[in-house]
Amino acid sequence: MLDSARRAVEPELRAAVESLPGSMRRVGRYHFGWEHADGSPARGQSGKAVRPALVLAAVRALGGSPSLAVRAAAAVELTHNFTLLHDDVIDHDVTRRHRATAWTVFGETDAILAGDAFQALAQSLLAKDRHPASSAAAGRLASCVIELCAGQHADAALEARSPSDVTLDECLAMAESKTGALLGCASAMGALYANADGEKVAALDAFGREAGLAFQLIDDIIGIWGDPEHTGKPAGADLLARKKSLPVVAALTSGTSAGTEIARWYSGPPEEMDPVRMASAIEKAGGRDWAQFHAADRMSRAVFQLSQAVPEPEKAGELLALAEFVTRRTY
Amino acid sequence: MLDSARRAVEPELRAAVESLPGSMRRVGRYHFGWEHADGSPARGQSGKAVRPALVLAAVRALGGSPSLAVRAAAAVELTHNFTLLHDDVIDHDVTRRHRATAWTVFGETDAILAGDAFQALAQSLLAKDRHPASSAAAGRLASCVIELCAGQHADAALEARSPSDVTLDECLAMAESKTGALLGCASAMGALYANADGEKVAALDAFGREAGLAFQLIDDIIGIWGDPEHTGKPAGADLLARKKSLPVVAALTSGTSAGTEIARWYSGPPEEMDPVRMASAIEKAGGRDWAQFHAADRMSRAVFQLSQAVPEPEKAGELLALAEFVTRRTY
Repeated sequence: MLDSARRAVEPELRAAVESLPGSMRRVGRYHFGWEHADGSPARGQSGKAVRPALVLAAVRALGGSPSLAVRAAAAVELTHNFTLLHDDVIDHDVTRRHRATAWTVFGETDAILAGDAFQALAQSLLAKDRHPASSAAAGRLASCVIELCAGQHADAALEARSPSDVTLDECLAMAESKTGALLGCASAMGALYANADGEKVAALDAFGREAGLAFQLIDDIIGIWGDPEHTGKPAGADLLARKKSLPVVAALTSGTSAGTEIARWYSGPPEEMDPVRMASAIEKAGGRDWAQFHAADRMSRAVFQLSQAVPEPEKAGELLALAEFVTRRTY
Repeated sequence: MLDSARRAVEPELRAAVESLPGSMRRVGRYHFGWEHADGSPARGQSGKAVRPALVLAAVRALGGSPSLAVRAAAAVELTHNFTLLHDDVIDHDVTRRHRATAWTVFGETDAILAGDAFQALAQSLLAKDRHPASSAAAGRLASCVIELCAGQHADAALEARSPSDVTLDECLAMAESKTGALLGCASAMGALYANADGEKVAALDAFGREAGLAFQLIDDIIGIWGDPEHTGKPAGADLLARKKSLPVVAALTSGTSAGTEIARWYSGPPEEMDPVRMASAIEKAGGRDWAQFHAADRMSRAVFQLSQAVPEPEKAGELLALAEFVTRRTY
């Protein structure tokens, strides 16, 4: 399903990136994995296309025609990738999708500008779209970007604070803004493109948000216990970078002795950090179980929201499968 | 006229900034001069409001109702200020409108995110606008942002190159993208909001672009020979930063001995740079006259374009006065 969404959306996405002026086109082609840093063609590793798949599946679930929403799906994917380009600059992340991040190849200036251009390109696609829902979708996407920015701000601010000074509630709120908002927006845009009423659009937004939180929780679990060959990041990279991901914060706030140990590592000198022992301490402090439990809980809330808008199981199947796919990844 | 445009647009602009989440609202209030860095209220020095004034004057010139275009005018001003926030980060500029730039006060992360949110907010305003032209205006503004990004990329790339390796043509093309494009877009959006036909919209775009180039040429002259009390920048700051502004590049490519002298200063050690002697060498090499001549030439092209769309002098008067105001500044 993800493959078919990627195949449906990629021509629109490529055409959009090709329409950019030279400098930003190069960054775009590289970022999406269509080109190597030297400009030679690459096989492409442009991400899992979860968000476009959500748009198209939501349209179908609500009885609309997904082929009319391909442009909207591409706009969502461009928006997602605009935030990735900027987040990597802000977080100084050097690896994404098994490759060097765009700013490490093209410099911060070009990565910032390419991100700006991606945001504009997404709005430009929607403005050119003749579908009656395109204007409402554009407004929804723009509001979502503001929430994504707030989420990224909260994330950067949380990372700068002492590990003892962070609560689970604020981490969950941050994850909802940073990840849930766009998955909610993608689902809601699909509903808009199916001409669904306001209540159904809101239910689809809530579905995407809850599934997004489940997705983030699983992503955080994989970031600690996943196989580096699949994650594309070195083993233990998030822990060594002292990332306050959800399982870590659950462990830090667990009141257990293992939690205290993690707080010591997170505040101590880098040479004392051992990602294998840290991962095991987080597990001992209950961080892994907490994250698994809450991922399942968010998933069931997502399913409930979906059932409000799409009560027929055969119509909801594709969206359910998508949500389950992203939360059942175990690599 | 600028004052009245600012008065008309500011409530919309304030309401938009107030609608942002906390972190970005703070940056926005500071950037627009409504708040000091410590959060206390400030008298406001939010820029000359040239772009919103162009939108409103273009609507009026083409027989539309400016009061219906206030939201669009605010969207243009937000877009302009999004680029200022990012450009200051990219160029490491520390002063704007007599004050410390936002990134020096709030950090690069928050300045980047506030810029991203401003871009989204501009699109959000247009998406909520019920005017029949709002969707076309949104598309035009998004395309314009892509051109602005290309202009900023070209600017940064030009600044990094050797002074002997820069041509006037590429500097003019850069200035058209970086400055002309948004003044053209503002004028064209005004035409759209007056329900003007495609030819008139295109003529207004060309009018704004030509006036924008004239504006940039005058701005560059002021940057070298202007009174620091009015410019808000220390005297000679652009020269000491080796900025390849248009009069400088005109001097560098003049084939005169004064031009050679400037090239030497621009490639030599900082302690040998003397902004007073450099300004006088640029004048001797003909850079000031060249810029004055071309500003006047661009202005007459702007007037021609305007006359195509608005042949009646009494209707064109306000737009003409605006264009002349921005190109007659002599401080």
